[in-house]
Amino acid sequence: MQFNAAHRVHNPALSDEENRALFGKCNNPNWHGHNYTLDVFVTGAVDERTGYVIDLAKVKAIVQREVVDKVDHRNLNLEVDFMQGIIPTTENIVVAMWRAIEPHLAPGHLSRLVLWETPNNYVEYDGR
Amino acid sequence: MQFNAAHRVHNPALSDEENRALFGKCNNPNWHGHNYTLDVFVTGAVDERTGYVIDLAKVKAIVQREVVDKVDHRNLNLEVDFMQGIIPTTENIVVAMWRAIEPHLAPGHLSRLVLWETPNNYVEYDGR
Amino acid sequence: MQFNAAHRVHNPALSDEENRALFGKCNNPNWHGHNYTLDVFVTGAVDERTGYVIDLAKVKAIVQREVVDKVDHRNLNLEVDFMQGIIPTTENIVVAMWRAIEPHLAPGHLSRLVLWETPNNYVEYDGR
Amino acid sequence: MQFNAAHRVHNPALSDEENRALFGKCNNPNWHGHNYTLDVFVTGAVDERTGYVIDLAKVKAIVQREVVDKVDHRNLNLEVDFMQGIIPTTENIVVAMWRAIEPHLAPGHLSRLVLWETPNNYVEYDGR
Amino acid sequence: MQFNAAHRVHNPALSDEENRALFGKCNNPNWHGHNYTLDVFVTGAVDERTGYVIDLAKVKAIVQREVVDKVDHRNLNLEVDFMQGIIPTTENIVVAMWRAIEPHLAPGHLSRLVLWETPNNYVEYDGR
Amino acid sequence: MQFNAAHRVHNPALSDEENRALFGKCNNPNWHGHNYTLDVFVTGAVDERTGYVIDLAKVKAIVQREVVDKVDHRNLNLEVDFMQGIIPTTENIVVAMWRAIEPHLAPGHLSRLVLWETPNNYVEYDGR
Repeated sequence: MQFNAAHRVHNPALSDEENRALFGKCNNPNWHGHNYTLDVFVTGAVDERTGYVIDLAKVKAIVQREVVDKVDHRNLNLEVDFMQGIIPTTENIVVAMWRAIEPHLAPGHLSRLVLWETPNNYVEYDGR
Repeated sequence: MQFNAAHRVHNPALSDEENRALFGKCNNPNWHGHNYTLDVFVTGAVDERTGYVIDLAKVKAIVQREVVDKVDHRNLNLEVDFMQGIIPTTENIVVAMWRAIEPHLAPGHLSRLVLWETPNNYVEYDGR
Repeated sequence: MQFNAAHRVHNPALSDEENRALFGKCNNPNWHGHNYTLDVFVTGAVDERTGYVIDLAKVKAIVQREVVDKVDHRNLNLEVDFMQGIIPTTENIVVAMWRAIEPHLAPGHLSRLVLWETPNNYVEYDGR
Repeated sequence: MQFNAAHRVHNPALSDEENRALFGKCNNPNWHGHNYTLDVFVTGAVDERTGYVIDLAKVKAIVQREVVDKVDHRNLNLEVDFMQGIIPTTENIVVAMWRAIEPHLAPGHLSRLVLWETPNNYVEYDGR
Repeated sequence: MQFNAAHRVHNPALSDEENRALFGKCNNPNWHGHNYTLDVFVTGAVDERTGYVIDLAKVKAIVQREVVDKVDHRNLNLEVDFMQGIIPTTENIVVAMWRAIEPHLAPGHLSRLVLWETPNNYVEYDGR
Repeated sequence: MQFNAAHRVHNPALSDEENRALFGKCNNPNWHGHNYTLDVFVTGAVDERTGYVIDLAKVKAIVQREVVDKVDHRNLNLEVDFMQGIIPTTENIVVAMWRAIEPHLAPGHLSRLVLWETPNNYVEYDGR
C-alpha cells in the first residue's frame, strides 16, 4: 500500500549543527518527502472453509484505517499520532506502524513489514 | 534520474477555502512529498565517430547540475529558483525543467521529458 | 488502473477447428484470464488556475465507472456491455474502452490508451 | 515463471449465498483470471565442479513440465489434475504446486515458493 | 525479449588513446556486458477475422530467429553477422536490428524498436 | 547497486568438451555479460540518537569501494582480485562479495546479499 508524505530527519535533543552533521540533506528544515510503499505480511494456517489464511480485503481495510489514512499526504514529524516524539527514519516508522497494525489483526499475526522509502531502499521488520 | 522533494499544491491567488476545494489533501499546509523520477529523451543523428547520438554521461551531468541538485531533498514551493511563482503540479514542474535543461544541451535537443510523481502517474512534455 | 478478467479468444463466425488453428491455447473453451493494466493519457493545455491539465481524480473516477467496474472480475466474452459481439483480443478491448471513456472526458481529450495483457505485451491506441 | 489462468474462488460445500458472502466478486460464476508469476527457490551447497547449487535450466524444465504446462491458459477449477477438489485460492495453489514440484528436484530441495496473483499480492510458502 | 551479451565500445579507426578518451570504461579491452531488453512494436489495422493486428507468436518467432538467437550469450563485436564493422553502441545495435527484422514482418510493419541497455537507459528508433 | 560485467562460466580443471556439456552457451569463449544488481541487507538495533540501524550512505560507500568499483565494466574471469581462481557463477560471486564487504561493516553485520544476474534469477546468501 502506498502513501506520500513529507518528513525531516531531525533529533530535537541535538543541536542544529549536530543534526546537519548526522543527517545531511535529509535534515533540511523546509522538509522533503517520499512515495512510501508498505508491504504487509500475515502468517497463519489456511482456513479449510475459505482456502484463505486471512481475507486480504480485511487486512487492507485495517492497514488503510490504522496507518495509511493517518500518514498519506501528511507531515510525519508534525501530524501523525503514532509518530509523536519519534525521529521519522524508515526504521522508526516501520516499528511504529507494526505497533499500530498488530493489535487489530487478531487472531491473525503480522510476520513482516517492509517499508520502502524509495525504489532503492527499504527496511524490513519482523517484530523482534 | 530520481529526486525526493516536498511540495504543496496551492495557488496563492485563491482563498484557503478555494484551494482546499480545488486541491484537497494535496493542499495540506504542512506539506507532503514524493520520490520523483525524471526521464530525459534526447534526439538526433548518430555520430559516426562515436556511434552515439550524445554521450549519456554528458546528459546526466547537465540534468544533475541544472535540475536534480536544485530540487533533491528540497521544498519545491520555497527553495527552487526555477519554480518561483509557479504552482508545483507535475505539469508545471516538467515545463520548468524543460526550460532549465534545454539551453544547455546544444547542439543536442530534448525530444521529451517524462516526470513521474508516483509509480502510477506521470506527465509527458515535448516542448510544445 | 488494474482489473482481472477471464476471456477466450474465439470468433463465433468460424468453426471450432478454425478457431483452434488460429488462436491455439488462447481459444480454450474453459477460459483463461489476465491481470490487465490500463494506462490512460489525457492531453491539453495547463489550466493557469490549477496548474493541472485535468484533475487526475476526475479521470480516475470516469475510468473506474465507465470501464473498470464493468470488467473487473468479469468474463469479457459474456458479461461486458461494451464488448458484445467483439472478439476480446487486446486490440479490440482497447478500442472498445476508448469509445467507452472518450465521450465522458470533455472538454479534455484522450491522447492514448495502453492496455497491458501481461507484463510482456500491450497494445497502444491513439484513436485513429 | 508466468502463466495465465481462469479461476473462481468457490467452496462447493457451501451454499451459493454463503459463497457470495465469503468471496464477493472473486466468486463470479462466469470466472475471472490472472497472470500468475511463480518464483521458485532452491537451496543447497555449491557444487565445486560447476559453481552451481543446481543448474537453473533443469529447475526450469521441471517447473515447466510439472506445473506451468498444466495450468497455463487453463481453468484452475476444472482442468488441473493437482487442483482437483481444492478451492483455488493463492494459498491452496502454492501448496499444491509445492507438492507437484518437490519430488522431482532431488537431490535438491525447494526452500520457498512465491506465487503472485497480481503485482500487488502474493503468497509465500516454505513447505511447513 | 531479452538477451545477454558482451561488448566493448571501440572505434577501430581511432587510436587506443582516443578510444579511452571518448568511451572511458566502456572501452575496456577485456569486455563488459549487459542484459539487453528489446521491445518490438508493430502497427497496422485490426484483422476482423482474428481481432489481431498480427499474431504475437509470429512476431516473437521472427525476432527470436533473426535477432535473439544471433546475439544471446554472444560477443557483439566479434560474433554477430549483422554487427560486422559497426561500433556496438545501443544506437547502432537498434538500427541494425531494425534492418534485420523489418524485411521478415511483411505485410506487417515495425513502428518502433526500443533497446534497453540497462534498466536506466534505452534507445528508441522508428526507422527514420 | 548495479554493475555491468562480462564473464564466462568455465572450469579450467575440465576439458573444453566437458565445459561445453556442463555450461552450454554460458561457456562461450568470446564472453557474454550481464547487468548485475546487488542488494545489500544490514541488520542491527536502531541507534536512539539517529533512528538508524546504520547510515545508508556509509554502506553504499563501502560497497562501492570494495565491490562495485572492482567489477563494474570489468571481466569477472580476468580482472577482479577477489574472483581469482573462482568460477564466476552467481553463487560464487555472491559468496566472494560477502567476504569482500563483511569485514568493513563492523560494528554492523551483513544479514543477506542478493545478487541478480538477470531480472529473472538471483542468488540469495546469508553467510552460512
